[in-house]
Amino acid sequence: MKRVKLGKGGEFDLIRRLVGNDDGADIALGPGDDAAVLRDGWVVTTDLSVEDVHFRRKWLNDEEIGWRAGAVALSDLAAMAATPVAVLVSMAVPRPAGGDRALDPEAVQRGVRAAAFSVGATVVGGDLTRSPGPLVIDVVALGRTAWPVQRDGAEDGDDVWVTGPLGASAAAVAIWESGGEPGPELRAAYAHPEPRVSAACGLVEQEVVDALIDLSDGLAGDAGHLAAASGVAIVLDEEAIPVAEAVVSAFGLERARDLALHGGEDYELCFVTDPGVVDVSYFEKKYGLRLAKVGTVEGLAVGGEPAVRIRRADGTVEELQRGGFDHWGPS
Amino acid sequence: MKRVKLGKGGEFDLIRRLVGNDDGADIALGPGDDAAVLRDGWVVTTDLSVEDVHFRRKWLNDEEIGWRAGAVALSDLAAMAATPVAVLVSMAVPRPAGGDRALDPEAVQRGVRAAAFSVGATVVGGDLTRSPGPLVIDVVALGRTAWPVQRDGAEDGDDVWVTGPLGASAAAVAIWESGGEPGPELRAAYAHPEPRVSAACGLVEQEVVDALIDLSDGLAGDAGHLAAASGVAIVLDEEAIPVAEAVVSAFGLERARDLALHGGEDYELCFVTDPGVVDVSYFEKKYGLRLAKVGTVEGLAVGGEPAVRIRRADGTVEELQRGGFDHWGPS
Repeated sequence: MKRVKLGKGGEFDLIRRLVGNDDGADIALGPGDDAAVLRDGWVVTTDLSVEDVHFRRKWLNDEEIGWRAGAVALSDLAAMAATPVAVLVSMAVPRPAGGDRALDPEAVQRGVRAAAFSVGATVVGGDLTRSPGPLVIDVVALGRTAWPVQRDGAEDGDDVWVTGPLGASAAAVAIWESGGEPGPELRAAYAHPEPRVSAACGLVEQEVVDALIDLSDGLAGDAGHLAAASGVAIVLDEEAIPVAEAVVSAFGLERARDLALHGGEDYELCFVTDPGVVDVSYFEKKYGLRLAKVGTVEGLAVGGEPAVRIRRADGTVEELQRGGFDHWGPS
Repeated sequence: MKRVKLGKGGEFDLIRRLVGNDDGADIALGPGDDAAVLRDGWVVTTDLSVEDVHFRRKWLNDEEIGWRAGAVALSDLAAMAATPVAVLVSMAVPRPAGGDRALDPEAVQRGVRAAAFSVGATVVGGDLTRSPGPLVIDVVALGRTAWPVQRDGAEDGDDVWVTGPLGASAAAVAIWESGGEPGPELRAAYAHPEPRVSAACGLVEQEVVDALIDLSDGLAGDAGHLAAASGVAIVLDEEAIPVAEAVVSAFGLERARDLALHGGEDYELCFVTDPGVVDVSYFEKKYGLRLAKVGTVEGLAVGGEPAVRIRRADGTVEELQRGGFDHWGPS
């Protein structure tokens, strides 16, 4: 769910204004993180997927559309280290127009169910209506956690990590948008993201995580959300950012790094720990994920202005100007 | 939320197929009622409102669009006798096209917040994106109850009740669609439905309710859902159905009765009790609602075929053929 993220995009400013902060006794954590936390450890998030904004029907089959919509919502539970329990799926479904293949809502639903099942959750309800425009899917994901991990715990000197290579999803979109067809690895990154639920819960069990977010907006943008919520500055190390091999092959290293930083929709986790506490080889053996330390927390936010900077290969450090992909801004 | 309702419309058949029934330990009640019930008494429902399907922007201002979207979702919590706690609002917002007034997402959100506040709930999150087509709002409502009231408890000999006059919302739509402008009472019924939360909770406190539903599809359709879930036949008494005065003035009695039966979107409650246990005057004094007994449960469903019949003014009894409004079917 893109909710009250503290980046600079128009979407974020607007959501910030839209969502108030009048929490009640049954609400442990209101707007401002990846999901809301309710009494008894329930965590809830909602995520809209809109045709021609988040996906195009010529890129994905109906089941993949459903998987992706479900996985994106479930990734927000992973970002709170919550265990998924239940999913609700609302769909506004267009009638076929001239030239369109008919959409099969049952296939979309199968995709959502498969994504839910992959992390132990069940579809318990939803809504269905026709749409006079695009296909719209809203997935509500509910999970439970005794220890929700928020975005605001990063501290000076901490290490910043990601759970896998970045940029492949955005690379697939770039290739489609330029009229090409991405190879299977890039396509899978976009069509079949896997919510990092067990990895997130594993990190929390080891009690090493100070702050956690899922990478929906791109590393630059989401590190910015962590920095803003925690009131710190983060310096990313350009050479340490893991870039998917297939992206380098398709675009060269420079563009690949740009996609990894700004492309978004990788749905890996980005997390912050005390220095030196992460056992990378244990994590790879147990979860099949190769953790990469991509930066460090270096000081508090200067003048109240949270910042993400990047240390280039030549040692120079620059402010990262551009945020992640902004569905709301001009495009 | 129109969820797995057991009526005959295309929407219902499709939802039935879409939503499975693989409940887990954290799920007390899965698909099939107005809302799902989770462990610890949490109840959750989701409800889509789509421009030009559920409303037109020339009928309502932006705040009313939000109120209505919120109230419709919260009404599903009332239908479970749950106390609303939290709301999440997802919006896909179109850019203004030629001739359209610009939509103000903040006003829509204010409307949802007002509806939530009116029943003690808080907006805790949401999602926001642009829409290349209509305005789409998905409202998730979460509440709590120790005693969720389902649809399946109606028994032979029970009385069937509604909490107020019907038909006004559908009358407003009919007038708008024919180019007119409804009067204030009809307009308010459509623009500003009030979720019957305190009435529902009051009924449960008095322990008189065997089954409960909110009237979203029209009395005929929703009584059909109660009958189907309970495996009984319901006979409605035509002359006892309360029809909003303004509807009779605008359309005459016969058409007004048709709108009350089939128009839908009144968001009053329909509930079933043991015979003779409801104190109408107490209820009116306490909740300001005039209860009307509209029918009785008369026997089990014949041959497994649930049925709603109507006793006309002349004493004849007919099967009610037509269900409620079906967003999914041809129209």
